[in-house]
Amino acid sequence: MTHVLPIQLRFRDTDRFGHVNNAVYATYAELARVDFLFGLEPAPEGLILASLKIDFRRQLHLGQEVEMRTRVARIGTTSVGLRQDLYADGQLAAEIQSVVVVYDYARETPVPVPEGVRAVLERYVVDA
Amino acid sequence: MTHVLPIQLRFRDTDRFGHVNNAVYATYAELARVDFLFGLEPAPEGLILASLKIDFRRQLHLGQEVEMRTRVARIGTTSVGLRQDLYADGQLAAEIQSVVVVYDYARETPVPVPEGVRAVLERYVVDA
Amino acid sequence: MTHVLPIQLRFRDTDRFGHVNNAVYATYAELARVDFLFGLEPAPEGLILASLKIDFRRQLHLGQEVEMRTRVARIGTTSVGLRQDLYADGQLAAEIQSVVVVYDYARETPVPVPEGVRAVLERYVVDA
Amino acid sequence: MTHVLPIQLRFRDTDRFGHVNNAVYATYAELARVDFLFGLEPAPEGLILASLKIDFRRQLHLGQEVEMRTRVARIGTTSVGLRQDLYADGQLAAEIQSVVVVYDYARETPVPVPEGVRAVLERYVVDA
Repeated sequence: MTHVLPIQLRFRDTDRFGHVNNAVYATYAELARVDFLFGLEPAPEGLILASLKIDFRRQLHLGQEVEMRTRVARIGTTSVGLRQDLYADGQLAAEIQSVVVVYDYARETPVPVPEGVRAVLERYVVDA
Repeated sequence: MTHVLPIQLRFRDTDRFGHVNNAVYATYAELARVDFLFGLEPAPEGLILASLKIDFRRQLHLGQEVEMRTRVARIGTTSVGLRQDLYADGQLAAEIQSVVVVYDYARETPVPVPEGVRAVLERYVVDA
Repeated sequence: MTHVLPIQLRFRDTDRFGHVNNAVYATYAELARVDFLFGLEPAPEGLILASLKIDFRRQLHLGQEVEMRTRVARIGTTSVGLRQDLYADGQLAAEIQSVVVVYDYARETPVPVPEGVRAVLERYVVDA
Repeated sequence: MTHVLPIQLRFRDTDRFGHVNNAVYATYAELARVDFLFGLEPAPEGLILASLKIDFRRQLHLGQEVEMRTRVARIGTTSVGLRQDLYADGQLAAEIQSVVVVYDYARETPVPVPEGVRAVLERYVVDA
């Protein structure tokens, strides 16, 4: 299974090079990540981003139809690896890898991925 | 007295028109407003923005020296009116008026401007 | 007639107060303004924002259904006044007034609102 | 040699978790990258970001003193690898790796790193 989220581009997303600014790809990734992970049933409580890698394949421009496709690359003890592909007008615009940690903000410590969360995440594992 | 804050422009502040995006003026205003109000001794606890008006006088571009000059236009019962002038390379780039309300976020209600805060704010009143 | 644009909220739109940051209202206003004005037939070529006023009525939070309703308040010689109402879950969250100037970026000067643009704008005039 | 840039944090940089939002680290990296690369003599003309990797080590909060330290990891034929360390109050907050390509935006094609640029970049190579 793949979580697919259409993204509404904003004029503010552009920079003086005329295209969507690179940091905004991180925002699109977060938008889809949050929609995916907190939309699970059951959903994890707290999450913190440990790493993010973006490979830019194409420039994005206003007017394009953009969507983020999110899958799970790996489920660890306290972390989850995500693989996201950003498409614009049907063409791959960026490949994004991230690692999120299930996190207890009150105690400021990682906690294990709950069993229920793990079970639903497994449906989204790449090539599963 | 005038509160003066130099502002570090970022590449991300621009948009596809090549200049600093209009919404970023609101962020500059907030940056200076927060620095001014929470830097007072004593400082107000919670604040919420009630209104914001920006008159754009000049476009801003990367490489310019930019600063925000903040003064107090009016002190009300639960609110404070601010007058901010944004300068770029010594020229007026925007005039900004705002009204902030002293706010109790826990109880979700405006509260009176504390006497101590009122006393220090008076030093910044325009033409005082 | 009213131009209505649903807005996709992003996690990035929030700030440490937990709600949507005030400057983001300006970005929502721009998103709808650009969609409205450049979507007209005929559309104006260049536009620049002369002033923006936001009256904040309610805090916005993630998960709400948000839309911007845009109408025309006034059509001047070189400028257009807009009136925008931001709704969240059916309730008024902000009232936004702006003045945009039809602008020739190459010559850096305002130009008259083209007759064709004026004609289509008139259909969106408030109370017309 | 290391290029060091102090960064002015903004209230807008935070999100509802109370800390600086993850995508803003990409903006800080860009701010320092642009300051570094376009500040070189001679400077490259056009640049485009090919990839970006951020390893988050600590949360950032308003009030901290933040600076980005930028060095060169690798100089290729048409690309330059950068290594950036983000420090907050003297502690490592993020490690950032990026690859920028010298790019001709008019012809939409990568071009070789000019010899003069290569010569000055070599002074910033890690462990050189």
